[in-house]
Amino acid sequence: MGAETTAAVVGLGSMGMGIARSLLRAGLQTLGADLNEEACARFRDAGGGVVETAADYARCSVVVVVVVNAAQTEAVLFGAEGIAQHLNPGTVVVSCATVAPEFARAMEARCRDSELLYLDAPISGGQVRANDGTLAVMAAGAPEAFDKARPVLDAMAATVFELGDAAGPGSAMKAVNQLLVGVQLAAMGEALTFGMTQGVSPEQFLEVIPKCAGTSWVLENRAPHVVAGDYTPLSAVDIWIKDLGIVTDIARGARFSAPLVAAALQQFAAASGMGLGQEDDAAIAKVYARNAQLKLPGEG
Amino acid sequence: MGAETTAAVVGLGSMGMGIARSLLRAGLQTLGADLNEEACARFRDAGGGVVETAADYARCSVVVVVVVNAAQTEAVLFGAEGIAQHLNPGTVVVSCATVAPEFARAMEARCRDSELLYLDAPISGGQVRANDGTLAVMAAGAPEAFDKARPVLDAMAATVFELGDAAGPGSAMKAVNQLLVGVQLAAMGEALTFGMTQGVSPEQFLEVIPKCAGTSWVLENRAPHVVAGDYTPLSAVDIWIKDLGIVTDIARGARFSAPLVAAALQQFAAASGMGLGQEDDAAIAKVYARNAQLKLPGEG
Repeated sequence: MGAETTAAVVGLGSMGMGIARSLLRAGLQTLGADLNEEACARFRDAGGGVVETAADYARCSVVVVVVVNAAQTEAVLFGAEGIAQHLNPGTVVVSCATVAPEFARAMEARCRDSELLYLDAPISGGQVRANDGTLAVMAAGAPEAFDKARPVLDAMAATVFELGDAAGPGSAMKAVNQLLVGVQLAAMGEALTFGMTQGVSPEQFLEVIPKCAGTSWVLENRAPHVVAGDYTPLSAVDIWIKDLGIVTDIARGARFSAPLVAAALQQFAAASGMGLGQEDDAAIAKVYARNAQLKLPGEG
Repeated sequence: MGAETTAAVVGLGSMGMGIARSLLRAGLQTLGADLNEEACARFRDAGGGVVETAADYARCSVVVVVVVNAAQTEAVLFGAEGIAQHLNPGTVVVSCATVAPEFARAMEARCRDSELLYLDAPISGGQVRANDGTLAVMAAGAPEAFDKARPVLDAMAATVFELGDAAGPGSAMKAVNQLLVGVQLAAMGEALTFGMTQGVSPEQFLEVIPKCAGTSWVLENRAPHVVAGDYTPLSAVDIWIKDLGIVTDIARGARFSAPLVAAALQQFAAASGMGLGQEDDAAIAKVYARNAQLKLPGEG
């Protein structure tokens, strides 16, 4: 079955590169595409193919679009040099960016107009799981889209949640997840630094809290960065400006009052304003530390 | 060693009763005390002793105080009918209520004046783990206090974190934990209902999110209550008015800006204002649902 599927992965950033490698490993014919020539060269070195001309897209039955946001997704598909015009009828577009459900529905409709199938398929799990082919995919779309994309989904994900037979619920669930992760990142920073004002060291925090009711996946995965003073980005502060911005926009559109997201977004805005936009999202703790004149591990 | 220790447990509510039973099961001579005669009768039925006169306290080498707050702790120890005056010198007071670190330090000092030892020992884990003798205790106090209380701590807890050799850090760590739990309860309610506005059902939420990065201990333990429409209190909404109030007070005293706690506390205040103070803390979701005109499972 694998050999029958030729897939393209558009966007060879940290997530897309991991997905593309996982597809290769699963035995799928895989073409990578990225504006960054260096990323394309790395994928070629890993044994993959690279899209050379737009005509290459006509060889693909599945195209995975792994770009940063809605604007890039739209440009990749329907911009002046968009790929939709080059795809054969019946090709499945697997759209992985975090976007509003309304945008996902609009893209599905435009794909339908171009005789393409669309899978609303945001991903969760980070770079490590992208590399391992063990992402979680929150997917929604026509049964035919799921069927055709199955070899690709199986290669990139440990878990595929099938949330509906039309676009929207995948992006909705992703927004729900991002709401929680963003709030819990800020909560981790708030709690760790609050503890410092009361004599609880970051090391003690990390020793005790993961064994108590206050723990979360986020805390267990990000508090170690603060304790180590290592802000090499797994996921950057500015990702949360974008993702909590999407959540906030959706919430406002639905007249939904979301005070915790609003508070968390302000803290990420402050972190980005401090010049930390490209640091790991655990750097949210630095906003709290600065406000309270605390020195985090690794500082001065 | 167990037979040499006679312990009293003052406060036979859901946590104190579980602790008292765990002490009995471990073979310790255990006396219960509560203003509620019915609670005392239940502990007697379970094979425990009951404090009949103040003189009974003179038989105890460890007294575990498991009351609701700082005011009750102070009244139990040093009120007009306080027990401190009846305890032998060298008796250890194990204080379990969630209180401010400053209060814990003050109680330790007053105990010292009465020749008593004091252990700042808030507990985490809820009623089930209290019954099983597998609580987590966040403890701080003099080494002599730890030594004397050891048989009691071992009987009530699976984990005893030793956080310092004087009172304060135990209560500080408990406040850190409560900050996280309170915020994550509100985040659970916010995310679950936000999802509903976008077509994600509470059942789908519960199926997907525990397997994604947005999960937390709180979410996995409380979201099922919302899905089941069952608000039988494991921990009540009003507990969070109290505990996030303590966190907020400590933070203000330290000039620490804690916007997520502030937002979460407002949601709990709204829940209590809606008359839900005695419902399970998962009822925080009802505040969000009411604001957005959503019907949660089990409602009309």
